[in-house]
Amino acid sequence: MRIIIDCYGGDYCPAEAVAGAVAALDKLPDLSVILTGYADELNALLQGYKYDKGRLEVAAATEVITNSDSPAKAVMRKKDSSTVVGLNLLKEGRADGMVSSANTGALLVGGSIILGLSEGVTRAALCPVLPNAKGTYTILADGGANIDCRPEQLGEFAVMGSVYMREMFNITSPAVGLLNNGAEPEKGNDQTKAAHKLLTGIQGINFVGNIECRDLLTGAVDVIVADGFNGNIGIKASEGMGSVLFGLIKEGIMQGGLRAKLGYILLKPVLKKVKNKMSSDDVGGAVFLGMKKVLVKTHGSGKKQAFMNAVIKAYGMAKGRVPEKIEQGLKYR
Amino acid sequence: MRIIIDCYGGDYCPAEAVAGAVAALDKLPDLSVILTGYADELNALLQGYKYDKGRLEVAAATEVITNSDSPAKAVMRKKDSSTVVGLNLLKEGRADGMVSSANTGALLVGGSIILGLSEGVTRAALCPVLPNAKGTYTILADGGANIDCRPEQLGEFAVMGSVYMREMFNITSPAVGLLNNGAEPEKGNDQTKAAHKLLTGIQGINFVGNIECRDLLTGAVDVIVADGFNGNIGIKASEGMGSVLFGLIKEGIMQGGLRAKLGYILLKPVLKKVKNKMSSDDVGGAVFLGMKKVLVKTHGSGKKQAFMNAVIKAYGMAKGRVPEKIEQGLKYR
Repeated sequence: MRIIIDCYGGDYCPAEAVAGAVAALDKLPDLSVILTGYADELNALLQGYKYDKGRLEVAAATEVITNSDSPAKAVMRKKDSSTVVGLNLLKEGRADGMVSSANTGALLVGGSIILGLSEGVTRAALCPVLPNAKGTYTILADGGANIDCRPEQLGEFAVMGSVYMREMFNITSPAVGLLNNGAEPEKGNDQTKAAHKLLTGIQGINFVGNIECRDLLTGAVDVIVADGFNGNIGIKASEGMGSVLFGLIKEGIMQGGLRAKLGYILLKPVLKKVKNKMSSDDVGGAVFLGMKKVLVKTHGSGKKQAFMNAVIKAYGMAKGRVPEKIEQGLKYR
Repeated sequence: MRIIIDCYGGDYCPAEAVAGAVAALDKLPDLSVILTGYADELNALLQGYKYDKGRLEVAAATEVITNSDSPAKAVMRKKDSSTVVGLNLLKEGRADGMVSSANTGALLVGGSIILGLSEGVTRAALCPVLPNAKGTYTILADGGANIDCRPEQLGEFAVMGSVYMREMFNITSPAVGLLNNGAEPEKGNDQTKAAHKLLTGIQGINFVGNIECRDLLTGAVDVIVADGFNGNIGIKASEGMGSVLFGLIKEGIMQGGLRAKLGYILLKPVLKKVKNKMSSDDVGGAVFLGMKKVLVKTHGSGKKQAFMNAVIKAYGMAKGRVPEKIEQGLKYR
């Protein structure tokens, strides 16, 4: 199994991307990797590591797509960027999957155009795989890539998310919920009302009905189907609440005198564990679903751990043949 | 200033509603209240309190609107419910505002029909007033009442929210943000793109642009404008994250042995303060904006404190003549 790692575009690139790639090689004996980016810089960084040279190669690129680049233009014009070079290698069958922390829009556009969409897929979805309170994971399809979706697209997301959870987590019949403003079947806006009807009729998925956004992180379902606009609102609201709460706790400790500081020292392992549990570093980023090849997005602020986990995730998706199974799953129509 | 308290419909009604009403009388010397509901039960409860009898009266009702009632039907058929009796008294000018913890939909329909909408208002908004990390408040307009809003309605919400923050918090020029999936002006779905243009042109409001949902609770703006569907998603996601985090912290403490338990005892005041700060009890519920009279919604699970704060809020809105000023504010068109 060979995974490409786009070593540029993220906040801590290329150093943390390289560190993550090497760490993944350590974890998975049958993994090999291709690092894309400035060859001199990558080779210099690699000198700091011990690794099996037969399992790692560098594919040179001379440009980087930045977050301020317009996605479509960047993909068209920066043909020799670490991202486009990687996508082309993947398309040519030189690898089984790719990981990147670069511009999400460029990955969406580049992946959709260069890799192509699976048969039956209208638009690729960007799906965060969220840790939940049960200690398992929930996939959100879509988490922000697709705005103003038609109900049929939400149907595709349901199938794609179900395939992912089945293959990656061995869940025989993943529970699918539709993100809505109420749990009752008659609730919703025009889009979700239509989607609810449509989802009820899709064979091969386990649609359990509407769910409210307070269940985003409770593990009530395995797959949450949403228009990317709403998925984005839900994710960002959760992140916001998390950061506000931890910020207020920190502030309270600073102002709380010796008692609070001592309490914090004692409780620190618990607080840290909770923070880590709900952090995205552990999760290995979001996955694009609906493209013909495996593409995993690492958070722009991801470090070694995030890259390593993303590589492991891409490896698992390639082994589980997720893109092929999505194509099969969409043959219900 | 006279405020009606609908003493039925919430989880802890009527006892906590009565307790909150009496507590509000204690706080505000020029307040008087009318309690609506089963007269015998209310009078029996009132015997447990000391209060100025000249400032409290009971208006008898013989029915209750429940949360399982269909809003429109309930308003039409349960004419002698504590809610409809209260709304009619308010309409007749017997009071200056009303507080209720009953069925939100029934309050929205009942308030819109019985009280009527202010001139220039297409639909009343239900606006939670959210505590934020800065220690101030942010109003979310709309928080769930209106689905599939037209951009012009979002414009009305911006004006209504601005008037509220100006009158209630003495903010001369409240900053208005449009809830969106990205901060850049060109971001959004069809609805928010159109709303962004429209908000830019409204005179008398301080529109600062799009905001992402991670700023729902940071206090980045004073007024957040949103379609009720998205507002609902944001609020529920925040609530969900809050409850998941506190749940995980609790779980960690239970499993963390003596050290964690001791840490918790020391840190408890801080954690409790944070929880209270972000809780809705302190806030006094959500307000309906756009109706001809003041109507405040207390959370269905609200207790004494929540009712008292809601009464104080209704009192402040009536004093500040919020409905009249919304009507003036909407004359920009």
